[in-house]
Amino acid sequence: MANRRTVFYLSDRTGITVETLGHSLLTQFDGIQWRKVSIPFLDSEDKAREAAEQINLMAQLDGYRPLVFSTLVNPVVREHIQRADCAIYDFFDNFIDSMEKELGQQSSHAIGRSHGLHDNASYTRRIAAINFAQANDDGISAKSFADADIILVGVSRSGKTPTCLYLAMQYGIYAANYPLTEEDMDDSKLPKILHPFRTKLFGLTITAEQLQRIRQERKPNSRYASFRQCQQELEWQQDLYRRENIPFINTTAISIEEIATTILNRSGLKRQLYGE
Amino acid sequence: MANRRTVFYLSDRTGITVETLGHSLLTQFDGIQWRKVSIPFLDSEDKAREAAEQINLMAQLDGYRPLVFSTLVNPVVREHIQRADCAIYDFFDNFIDSMEKELGQQSSHAIGRSHGLHDNASYTRRIAAINFAQANDDGISAKSFADADIILVGVSRSGKTPTCLYLAMQYGIYAANYPLTEEDMDDSKLPKILHPFRTKLFGLTITAEQLQRIRQERKPNSRYASFRQCQQELEWQQDLYRRENIPFINTTAISIEEIATTILNRSGLKRQLYGE
Repeated sequence: MANRRTVFYLSDRTGITVETLGHSLLTQFDGIQWRKVSIPFLDSEDKAREAAEQINLMAQLDGYRPLVFSTLVNPVVREHIQRADCAIYDFFDNFIDSMEKELGQQSSHAIGRSHGLHDNASYTRRIAAINFAQANDDGISAKSFADADIILVGVSRSGKTPTCLYLAMQYGIYAANYPLTEEDMDDSKLPKILHPFRTKLFGLTITAEQLQRIRQERKPNSRYASFRQCQQELEWQQDLYRRENIPFINTTAISIEEIATTILNRSGLKRQLYGE
Repeated sequence: MANRRTVFYLSDRTGITVETLGHSLLTQFDGIQWRKVSIPFLDSEDKAREAAEQINLMAQLDGYRPLVFSTLVNPVVREHIQRADCAIYDFFDNFIDSMEKELGQQSSHAIGRSHGLHDNASYTRRIAAINFAQANDDGISAKSFADADIILVGVSRSGKTPTCLYLAMQYGIYAANYPLTEEDMDDSKLPKILHPFRTKLFGLTITAEQLQRIRQERKPNSRYASFRQCQQELEWQQDLYRRENIPFINTTAISIEEIATTILNRSGLKRQLYGE
């Protein structure tokens, strides 16, 4: 039976940073089944006491003390957690002291800087990019393509929409997309509407097996979801990419984050947001 | 003049984790102007040599050695960076050793676990949630509300769309939204279509000043963007929230991450994804 343990993510604010951090550390250890507990907005002594009790309880239940990843700033809250039965991996303890020395200045020890406050220009850019992705999804207007930083192309269900949204949300990129359809296949050339925007094109592809699985969930037992149909569309599409020199990426085994970052990196696009 | 320094984010994979980490640490130090350089997919000796040169160059330019946040796993790559003129804050060095002792097992030192591989159930849920948010934006169909985990309500431009998308992307939540319009105001009651779904409602609000600024960008000098119009809609909306006992959050000064996490936390919704 798998080793069962509990991990806590504690934060004064959203907990998103500490969850990302913790998750990527946990993936370095195989064969453990993790029970994950997030406690965001942990900002009072009462909540700290409750969190400590929860930690102690899980230590008893599991027979192992929980791992606690934390970005807590408030010293009173921290103290309560430190007295609990757990192994603490604190983000601030590990880096802030050494950064203070390097930078020759004290840290502000302020809570919630990373996601709480935002400068207006970045915020506006981010919202505008999300709206753009939303408005120009499956876009077939040349107007939207003219304004786009990048245009993703690919057959239906190859991952265009989530990738566009992620490019907008994380990097503030104006991403439009164009679905390659059967009608385009008949023509066997690059669709005319895309001609003026060749340099902005980036292709997505996927294995026929995975595409079939996804389409099957959407329209069970349709021609659209048949293996043969998926295979034909993909073959045609990859020929097109090669013939037209469109860079492309296979999205089968990688996450939305990885697809988006790879595209950003390979296309040389400048990010408009920076871990804001 | 502000103190000008360079920070590097180095990663074997996307760099998203290390950027999040670094950003939240940098915000603890005021008065420094950061030049931010991300080098994702740093996975060969050639690239490592180039990165080290870039670091040394910036050290000369700035007159301060750069800060380097890193999640590098490859020992050869790490060695090159360690020899460069910089202060390294390495994620793995700081935590993995102590985690190995705590867990009584070696880490896999494998690259790109956090965003690279994914289990199919989480991935499918995430994509389905994003599609749901996309399909049910400004949704006015009772069908979509029946399937939703949560329904955000609020006047036009109060932040519903990005929040729904973020809830889907980060937490796998099915989030629909319903725009409160002038027609609803005339009626001064909860729109009928929402009646069966009262328990799923969560309201967004915003200051009239901020709403005016946002609408002004969209439709300059329209009645829609007038301060008086914004104020009236917001007053009506907040009365509605109070009368109908709809929980609500003011989105004016906080980020999308913070809005989404607060809603998740206050509504007691169970997250469907966990820092995957």
